[in-house]
Amino acid sequence: MSKQRYIAGLRAVEELLAAGKPEVRRLYAEYQTANPRVEAVIREARQAGIEIQAANRARLAQISGEARHQGVVAEVRRSTVLDEGTLRTLVEERLQAGEPLLLLVLDGVQDPHNLGACMRTADAAGVDAVVVPRHGAASLGPTVSKVAAGAAEQVPFVPVGNVNRVLTWLADYGVRRVGTSDKAAANLFDTDLTGPVALIMGREHTGLAKGIAERCDVLVCLPMRGVVSSLNVSVATGICLYEILRQRR
Amino acid sequence: MSKQRYIAGLRAVEELLAAGKPEVRRLYAEYQTANPRVEAVIREARQAGIEIQAANRARLAQISGEARHQGVVAEVRRSTVLDEGTLRTLVEERLQAGEPLLLLVLDGVQDPHNLGACMRTADAAGVDAVVVPRHGAASLGPTVSKVAAGAAEQVPFVPVGNVNRVLTWLADYGVRRVGTSDKAAANLFDTDLTGPVALIMGREHTGLAKGIAERCDVLVCLPMRGVVSSLNVSVATGICLYEILRQRR
Repeated sequence: MSKQRYIAGLRAVEELLAAGKPEVRRLYAEYQTANPRVEAVIREARQAGIEIQAANRARLAQISGEARHQGVVAEVRRSTVLDEGTLRTLVEERLQAGEPLLLLVLDGVQDPHNLGACMRTADAAGVDAVVVPRHGAASLGPTVSKVAAGAAEQVPFVPVGNVNRVLTWLADYGVRRVGTSDKAAANLFDTDLTGPVALIMGREHTGLAKGIAERCDVLVCLPMRGVVSSLNVSVATGICLYEILRQRR
Repeated sequence: MSKQRYIAGLRAVEELLAAGKPEVRRLYAEYQTANPRVEAVIREARQAGIEIQAANRARLAQISGEARHQGVVAEVRRSTVLDEGTLRTLVEERLQAGEPLLLLVLDGVQDPHNLGACMRTADAAGVDAVVVPRHGAASLGPTVSKVAAGAAEQVPFVPVGNVNRVLTWLADYGVRRVGTSDKAAANLFDTDLTGPVALIMGREHTGLAKGIAERCDVLVCLPMRGVVSSLNVSVATGICLYEILRQRR
């Protein structure tokens, strides 16, 4: 999924800048021009702190794939924040393509450091999307972006109103809902994780909510050999995601 | 390895308290006594903020395994910080007992949060000891203790002057030195990790030092499917340790 796109043409770029959209990453513009509108666009972008790169007409056409760019091309960060409907489409597409779907559901992770570390690992493990509750949980922000080391702008992120409802319709698509719980009877390593899977991790300290745990097709635990009763949620997420990767090789 | 021990008798406990040792966790004392020295010990422990529990003579004997306790027993936290010589003894004991040795060598982890998370995971995975360089790396402290959730006081911790030297003598005992590197040709999951193993993780951002990497018997990498080039060191440590656990089941 390409994460960048280019918007060409004076009218479109003027509107983008007027809307003050934070997703404009860079402006490519023709400096050697007598057109005052191009100059105004450059001025406005500069005021907004957007990086500006000079480019000639041929380069602008090459970047944007659009000959009628009128001397300005804006590079826009495509939002990776999806709504529930778009997640459903994504799930359908993956399953129809016969690809091994892998969703990570973080049911109420509170600490942005943990969310950032989970996003980083999710990207590395090829997770298709990270699903979180819209309320009462950490969301994207500067701390998450920093800890995620680039992954927060890459992995589709889906805040939903009701995690339970998502888990319900995922079952209709045959997605196996694998929850983690330190009270689970099944061991992660003994569980078949090769099909379409939604891995569900609970929040720090309290773990999976009862209603969520009841909706899981299987609950798994990690072996604990020492005195601590649980692992950090981002570490546990990493162990589970990579066990899924291992089984799918 | 038991981490608690009990010191009984007036003289011994008085000395412990006089030395202001932070490792006195709790004082068990006979309250129904006319002995002013017992009363003085109780008073001093209270002033030092040490938890005090009343116990009769029979209970004190039971706790300490010592009939001549004179009415006072101190519970002491055994230090888990070992020197290199003690590590060598520990390694010899494990190998002689035919137990599957597992050491975690953190070659210069800087962030105490990462060290704490590694200690927590090391405890959960049954690691025998964590080895770190004495200089230029995070060491035990309040942040590590908090993040480690009890594991920092449990897992033997071995700051050494020269990690290279430790890796050299570990080879003499037949311990396989498994380093992690994103440039490694071997995949973690394809590597036999069932024998005695020292898992070696590099520092944040820079990874394993060249000299350390050269001393490893095998370098392994984790599959990376996304844009990020590496995982957080505590997450990567968790994935590696649990893969070792999985193979050893």
